[in-house]
Amino acid sequence: MASMPLRVIPLGGLGAIGKNMMVLEYGDDIVVIDCGVMFPGEDMPGVDLVIPDISYLVERSHKVRAILITHGHEDHTGALPYVLPRLNVPVFAPRLAHGLISVKLKDHGLHKSTDLRAIEPGVPISLGPFETEAFRVCHSIPDAMGLAIRTPVGLVVHTGDFKIDHTPVDGKTTDLASLARYGAEGVLLLLSDSTYAELEGYTPSERVVGEALDRVIAGAPGRVLVATFASLIARIQQTIEAAARHGRKVAVVGRSMVDNVAMATEMGYIKAPPGVLVSLQKAMKLPQNEVVLVTTGSQGEPTSALVRIASGTHRQIEVFPDDTVIISATAIPGNEKVVYRTIDNLMRQGARVLYDKIALVHVHGHSSREELKIMLNLTKPKFFVPVHGEYRGLAAHASLARDMGVQKDNAFILEDGDVLELTSTGGQVTEQVSAGHIYVDGLSTMDTKSVVLRDRKLLSQDGIVVIVLSFDKASGAPLSEPAVVSSGFVEHQQAEELFGKVAAHIYDSLDHGSHYPLDWSYVNAKVKEIAGELLYKGTGRRPMIIPVTLEV
Amino acid sequence: MASMPLRVIPLGGLGAIGKNMMVLEYGDDIVVIDCGVMFPGEDMPGVDLVIPDISYLVERSHKVRAILITHGHEDHTGALPYVLPRLNVPVFAPRLAHGLISVKLKDHGLHKSTDLRAIEPGVPISLGPFETEAFRVCHSIPDAMGLAIRTPVGLVVHTGDFKIDHTPVDGKTTDLASLARYGAEGVLLLLSDSTYAELEGYTPSERVVGEALDRVIAGAPGRVLVATFASLIARIQQTIEAAARHGRKVAVVGRSMVDNVAMATEMGYIKAPPGVLVSLQKAMKLPQNEVVLVTTGSQGEPTSALVRIASGTHRQIEVFPDDTVIISATAIPGNEKVVYRTIDNLMRQGARVLYDKIALVHVHGHSSREELKIMLNLTKPKFFVPVHGEYRGLAAHASLARDMGVQKDNAFILEDGDVLELTSTGGQVTEQVSAGHIYVDGLSTMDTKSVVLRDRKLLSQDGIVVIVLSFDKASGAPLSEPAVVSSGFVEHQQAEELFGKVAAHIYDSLDHGSHYPLDWSYVNAKVKEIAGELLYKGTGRRPMIIPVTLEV
Repeated sequence: MASMPLRVIPLGGLGAIGKNMMVLEYGDDIVVIDCGVMFPGEDMPGVDLVIPDISYLVERSHKVRAILITHGHEDHTGALPYVLPRLNVPVFAPRLAHGLISVKLKDHGLHKSTDLRAIEPGVPISLGPFETEAFRVCHSIPDAMGLAIRTPVGLVVHTGDFKIDHTPVDGKTTDLASLARYGAEGVLLLLSDSTYAELEGYTPSERVVGEALDRVIAGAPGRVLVATFASLIARIQQTIEAAARHGRKVAVVGRSMVDNVAMATEMGYIKAPPGVLVSLQKAMKLPQNEVVLVTTGSQGEPTSALVRIASGTHRQIEVFPDDTVIISATAIPGNEKVVYRTIDNLMRQGARVLYDKIALVHVHGHSSREELKIMLNLTKPKFFVPVHGEYRGLAAHASLARDMGVQKDNAFILEDGDVLELTSTGGQVTEQVSAGHIYVDGLSTMDTKSVVLRDRKLLSQDGIVVIVLSFDKASGAPLSEPAVVSSGFVEHQQAEELFGKVAAHIYDSLDHGSHYPLDWSYVNAKVKEIAGELLYKGTGRRPMIIPVTLEV
Repeated sequence: MASMPLRVIPLGGLGAIGKNMMVLEYGDDIVVIDCGVMFPGEDMPGVDLVIPDISYLVERSHKVRAILITHGHEDHTGALPYVLPRLNVPVFAPRLAHGLISVKLKDHGLHKSTDLRAIEPGVPISLGPFETEAFRVCHSIPDAMGLAIRTPVGLVVHTGDFKIDHTPVDGKTTDLASLARYGAEGVLLLLSDSTYAELEGYTPSERVVGEALDRVIAGAPGRVLVATFASLIARIQQTIEAAARHGRKVAVVGRSMVDNVAMATEMGYIKAPPGVLVSLQKAMKLPQNEVVLVTTGSQGEPTSALVRIASGTHRQIEVFPDDTVIISATAIPGNEKVVYRTIDNLMRQGARVLYDKIALVHVHGHSSREELKIMLNLTKPKFFVPVHGEYRGLAAHASLARDMGVQKDNAFILEDGDVLELTSTGGQVTEQVSAGHIYVDGLSTMDTKSVVLRDRKLLSQDGIVVIVLSFDKASGAPLSEPAVVSSGFVEHQQAEELFGKVAAHIYDSLDHGSHYPLDWSYVNAKVKEIAGELLYKGTGRRPMIIPVTLEV
């Protein structure tokens, strides 16, 4: 029996608490669930990726038994190349995720040093005191799993990202029977996906999208372009099936889409009738009403195929007035503007564009409230921790769990770094550990408090003015009027006169006697003050001002 | 009878075509409808405001008879202070808009030089050949009007921003009778609000929000905070009424909200029962369940009252666990993240937060498709131009108009600057004139192609590195290793070693003989090349590099 508490620690999720990494710790053993990236927001200029802060794990690396991956999406797998060099532990992943991770590790030269293993639903894995098995869930990528982890304190069920689709494209439904079995066995803790916990009702089945795609393709006068996520294998499969039914060929456009379709076909996740998948070259020679193109660009990514097609800069594909374009995706928050700009550009060239606001051409991969209730009802957990959601989603989910019978004090809304200690009778948050986000920019990383990011935001507001002063090394006397250069501040013609004035004022204000050594901090402060005032008076703008002083 | 065509020219609308300014021109006469600003997007760093390009009007200022304002929102009035100094013409506005514009002109010292007149529905105004009358429409601000303009070519109806609310808070419904009369008279051209032309059904009445506010306030255990737009006078009136019904006092928080409530009360647009409106100081002394606070901050504006309350930095107001917060607004696209962060922060402190996703606490002010059909059916226009919408809204509205009987070639989707020439029998776009957006930043303006904005975006990506080289004035020989400074590039400790290397490499690469005059463009290009390569190799980042060369 348990002599110690089970520790539950979300590490990093950018608002979506614990989405990218969740830690279970018992005594000298740790398992990590997922290892994902977040994509930088507009408030992180120049940042390439955001990864979880794993210092807690690195300090205890001897305790970490494994990283368990629930499915192959980037927000659950993408940090592996950054984490594994610091924490070389076995990685367990469902088959498709295993394939995707292999490619990623090869790109980073980590495939030889990594112990990557495929897991199958129902096959137990022993990790120290953690007896783990995966169970199938439906999500917007095949081979998504939840995890049932037997610990000395009790059974923990982690749903992963899930919805309850009774008619998924691959026929593999969320494994309600296993969930019922866990419920009968007694679930100590349920960690459940809260992404859409505010949404009433049920998330529609993938099947309704298949039917919509079929109708649109059947009735389209010319070519059909379907833009979706490269990982939305089921959507691609549905498109291929609908195209085949209506005598059309399918060509795949965009590098990540081509790669994913090739990989998924090879692994058996995409099944195309013979001859239906053709090259783009071949498709370009067919009559337009015999063609479906599947492309990237559903998020308005600037370099994607669809965006280049829409802006008339794609090398091979242009828009024709009889084209039908289906945006089979929802704009991820922050991407709305670029997605809509793409739609507008396609329409301007005469294409008919169908998107989620006006047609049922997309459903998402997360449970709405009725599905969350089913999960709670089947597992009947003693303790509940909502995961994968922003705070209001977690709060809505916790409140739902209480309505469904979880005791008020047994539902915990955690923040990243909170340590929840559970025994079989009670739980409490006992401490906070280092957690949160690390920004990857080029070859190095920064934390969220970095002055570099703060400066980038300042620079983008009113630009920068650099003022270079030269002084005589021996006497300390100024050698000439300062040189003033700028970027992002004002137009060139406006700058010239203004900078002349600034240079003259600063030069006049300097002590022209010989006062070596100069008080540099005084000179710098004075230069900033004079320049700041003159520039603001002349333009109403407040650029960053950097004085540079040379002794020659 | 008409001997010339009527020219219809949208000037500026940031995607929402013609939203901010629409021009009607006949021979030697022009009237301008609305004069609004747009608020800058994330792709316009540092920009304060976006105004329409009025060069077309300035070149023809002798022809411009008036600017007609449809209602008091900023996106229809906000450019007046920037336009009137260049185009001093009479401005006609409904009574409330007149009040709001007066304040604005006073702030800019323009009230004495401007001929600002109030218009009443049904009262004719003669502007050269344009016989104009306003008719009442419902929108999210009182005193919103559409315009019926009789021209030598025929009757033009411009809807302004509108919805058809049969039970508005002030009882003043959209004037369907006048619209029917115009339809009977014969409408040459309908210009109609397309903001929500993609949305099926009807926009709910303001009344449903009033009922929701009443229920929430009736059942709230503690204080109620209602955050909404300062211009949403009807919502504030409803809140006051609900508070009064349930024995609560109302205090107003936030400068723009205080100003607007004072002005609207004075002008009779807000009617509070005696004693219900109290000062914040007084409200702070009342039991919490007797208080309603109306505040700004529904868009997550960083300096607004609600955001400061949520982040614990408001001087007077803190969040209590029994508080109920109602966000009675929708996040304007681009504001979603900050609005949700505010909601999350309020919830973290224990407040119950109601917002549009989970409760009917807001309706917007624009027509959905069924209302647009009523407008088309009443006016039965010969020609149709959808306005106030992004391209896909305009396209949806044009297609709706065709379905409702407008001939295919008589519905025109215009872009800003398009000149549509209409006769009584036909119309076509004959030319493009200068139009679009001018960015106001501080005291001066920039156009959309400005290098300043491009540089700001570049600066925000990987920052800037400035390299200062000094040469002997007489010999042209370098005087010392260059000085290297940066901002927004890398952390200080990383910079030091890297910049030492860069300085040394550049110094070594310079010709140390005496070669006056130096080829500056060659030196600059070489410095950029050497530094760019070393910095990228060391960091994976590509900052902007600016060489500064001094001769001393």
